[in-house]
Amino acid sequence: MSSLQNVGRSLARCAAQNVARRRNIQSVRCQSTAASVNVQPVEDEPAAPMVKTPIPGPRSKELLKDLESIQNSEAVQFFVDYDRSHGNYITDVDDNVLLDLYTQIASIPIGYNHPNLLAAMQKPENLGHFINRPALAVFPPKDWAEKLRNTLLTVAPPGMAEVQTMACGACSVEHAQKALFIEYKARQRGGAPPTEEELTSCLMNQAPGNPDLSILSFKGAFHGRTMGALALTHSKAIHKLDFPAPDWPTASFPQLRYPLEDFVQENRAEEDRCLAEVRDLIEKYQKKGRSVVGICVEPIQCEGGDNHATAYFFQGLQDIARENTIGLMFDEVQTGCAASGKFWAHEHWNLREPPDIVSFAKKMLTGGFYYRQNYRPQQGFRIFNTWVGDPAKVTLLEEVVKVIQSQNLVANMANLGAYLQQGLKDAQTKFPGVVKNARGLGTLCSIDFNNSATRDKALLALRGKGIHVGSCGDVSIRLRPTLIFQKKHADLFFDCFDSVLSSFK
Amino acid sequence: MSSLQNVGRSLARCAAQNVARRRNIQSVRCQSTAASVNVQPVEDEPAAPMVKTPIPGPRSKELLKDLESIQNSEAVQFFVDYDRSHGNYITDVDDNVLLDLYTQIASIPIGYNHPNLLAAMQKPENLGHFINRPALAVFPPKDWAEKLRNTLLTVAPPGMAEVQTMACGACSVEHAQKALFIEYKARQRGGAPPTEEELTSCLMNQAPGNPDLSILSFKGAFHGRTMGALALTHSKAIHKLDFPAPDWPTASFPQLRYPLEDFVQENRAEEDRCLAEVRDLIEKYQKKGRSVVGICVEPIQCEGGDNHATAYFFQGLQDIARENTIGLMFDEVQTGCAASGKFWAHEHWNLREPPDIVSFAKKMLTGGFYYRQNYRPQQGFRIFNTWVGDPAKVTLLEEVVKVIQSQNLVANMANLGAYLQQGLKDAQTKFPGVVKNARGLGTLCSIDFNNSATRDKALLALRGKGIHVGSCGDVSIRLRPTLIFQKKHADLFFDCFDSVLSSFK
Repeated sequence: MSSLQNVGRSLARCAAQNVARRRNIQSVRCQSTAASVNVQPVEDEPAAPMVKTPIPGPRSKELLKDLESIQNSEAVQFFVDYDRSHGNYITDVDDNVLLDLYTQIASIPIGYNHPNLLAAMQKPENLGHFINRPALAVFPPKDWAEKLRNTLLTVAPPGMAEVQTMACGACSVEHAQKALFIEYKARQRGGAPPTEEELTSCLMNQAPGNPDLSILSFKGAFHGRTMGALALTHSKAIHKLDFPAPDWPTASFPQLRYPLEDFVQENRAEEDRCLAEVRDLIEKYQKKGRSVVGICVEPIQCEGGDNHATAYFFQGLQDIARENTIGLMFDEVQTGCAASGKFWAHEHWNLREPPDIVSFAKKMLTGGFYYRQNYRPQQGFRIFNTWVGDPAKVTLLEEVVKVIQSQNLVANMANLGAYLQQGLKDAQTKFPGVVKNARGLGTLCSIDFNNSATRDKALLALRGKGIHVGSCGDVSIRLRPTLIFQKKHADLFFDCFDSVLSSFK
Repeated sequence: MSSLQNVGRSLARCAAQNVARRRNIQSVRCQSTAASVNVQPVEDEPAAPMVKTPIPGPRSKELLKDLESIQNSEAVQFFVDYDRSHGNYITDVDDNVLLDLYTQIASIPIGYNHPNLLAAMQKPENLGHFINRPALAVFPPKDWAEKLRNTLLTVAPPGMAEVQTMACGACSVEHAQKALFIEYKARQRGGAPPTEEELTSCLMNQAPGNPDLSILSFKGAFHGRTMGALALTHSKAIHKLDFPAPDWPTASFPQLRYPLEDFVQENRAEEDRCLAEVRDLIEKYQKKGRSVVGICVEPIQCEGGDNHATAYFFQGLQDIARENTIGLMFDEVQTGCAASGKFWAHEHWNLREPPDIVSFAKKMLTGGFYYRQNYRPQQGFRIFNTWVGDPAKVTLLEEVVKVIQSQNLVANMANLGAYLQQGLKDAQTKFPGVVKNARGLGTLCSIDFNNSATRDKALLALRGKGIHVGSCGDVSIRLRPTLIFQKKHADLFFDCFDSVLSSFK
């Protein structure tokens, strides 16, 4: 073990030296609005990664064997000592300390063991929220409206003033879909109540009570793994194989060419092609008696490979939705909560009006969705279940929102995003045969390798150096840092990335 | 307010006197295994209900108006001061103190503010579980297998040794359904990998990758409100109206006549009729190219009206599943966790072998499902999402399981269940024109009124006396007490119930 410790120490030393060097060279990059940002580092956050064993290490392997006796555990990468993870660093059970740019699949907002969250847990007035979980839509706690106002409404997308909580991302998308169907049918009825035939047929999964309607989604999309959310998901076969699925329209999502500035015309043509396909599919499905009630889209297709589109495309989608009087829903489960450099990624598109629905989860700690007023169901018990979310999570979100606001972390993400994107572009300039298509929106950054095997090798090599990033699509790595990510962390990443790419040359 | 307070005080006094009287009369009933039960009362639990205002009171109405500005809040009954709710009593924001026999739609296991849960929240070693929510299937915490073993596996249904956690009830049912489809298709393939055509077609919601398969469910069933779970749900139109639904088979659930001992032959014929319908539907759907991969059933149809069936029926379902080599899934989201007088309600049926899948949530605090070994997916990432549950909830469940075991609360539920059932039968004997069909399995008890209007009136009258019960189906009230419910609470309920029924005579 002591030789491994030496390797770890020498890695850390080397990283620190490189950081110092890099800082001198590139300190100009990230100062645009730096003055207003005030990131408070988390106490006990390590200064550098420290890798002592191969990952997963012996202790992780032992625990994995144990867990395998209880459930399929093939997805496990390593076991974590969360008590010893701090800020941007995650510590595994073999004492390996990694700089975490993946953050539990983009779901840790302000780092591990943030002092404000620890403090919130120790306030006696908060304890009740954690141990008395209510049936929230029937017996809400006294401070529920206030809590929603202090959290979800404080950070609501511009022009949106209503919100429904849910327990997880997939449930959020499922119930957002229901809001689309409810609004569409209510409009069709023009204020009339449902017919007796509708009320009885729906109990047997039959029309007209269960109408043959659809929602349009995109190739490469990921929206969740329950039946309705999965009907909109088209990123990987392993998510979908063997499950019945409705025949709903699936349009092409733009495949942009990079660097964007060199392919303006081609990318515009590609986005026009996709928009035309959306129009055609809406018409086609209406003709075949399965009308489209809404369009569901991610601001960035994350799971599908960090596929971006421009403001032009999203504005075009909104135009199509308006022309057809159907809903436009942004699924911001992964892109929301400041990571893009604006609180919601769709704020980057300068849309003519707010979207109809915005779903969220992950870094927001609670699931749920915002909706425009006409998507409020007119009856109770339609968007409903026992828990419909969890005040415990909203209690934690309250602290997260305070930290985001007081430390100006949205601006931090804008600054760091620009810095990360520039660093990735530098990397592809330096290693042209190895990486390409550097892209990002704020810190939601990624870069492609030439093939899956090289990408996977790079990911493991980075991990061996104490840098934990995620993969997505077939050939991409994605960066999903915390909101308290700082330039020093970015520099550490780039030094290791440079070293890994050099070894691939 | 002071006259209202007087009303409240006098109500409480009257209830206490009645309890004393009742105790003398009926103390014989509930002693079968009482010696082994050791329910520790929750400190600060009130001695009796105290109703000061109409419910919802002025403060609830004010808060409702506020919440209505954020979301449709039609389902809200009243706002709760959870900090001031203790044990079996819930206190609303107007200082009304209610004996709670509905317990957040059957989801509070050991009462409000249980000292062991409060203590668990204050243990420093637990805090990390609450603020560092992991992507559990990829980066589990070091003690995850141990935690599963101390909780879900300790109380696993006989013959079941594997478990998958999920965030909520609907997600649990959704992913349990996926396990049924995965197993069925894997068996069909006989070990061969999926074809290229399957892998590509499934990305576009098309066969053969998304095969036309189905799951059989029952009229009156409730399994959740996401698209897959909703496809199995047939209890109320408001749950289903306007949403697309697959044409899956829906069989009749037995409509038993009460008292059971007077209708043995008729009920057997009714259950045979339903079983025959299940057989017919499986054959019919196979013929139309939509084979049934499993049967999903609640041990008691709770939401649908507390509809019971006998062991004969459930044994018959298992026989049919075996004959057709398809799965049998018990959805125990509401019936699980000791309330039936056994830990799992299906344990009452003396099944020939364990069920294939058992789903849970509510009082278990975490969602999830148990499955037999052949329902373990052979690949990772198939039953998967970002959170797949929450170690924070399992940390609380650990304390709940300890309390259940140390205080022998399963036996408590068996005892109290017998007591409640007898009390309901006494009520229907005393008020033959008002209530009927007293029934129950452990404390999962209910009774019918002659019509919805009378039932609703009774529910409000009970609430006016400080007794909070739930409704279900069209004409039933259901009792869903905590696991620390005691004879004194039952006596309070029966006194008020008697008084309400007397007023209806």
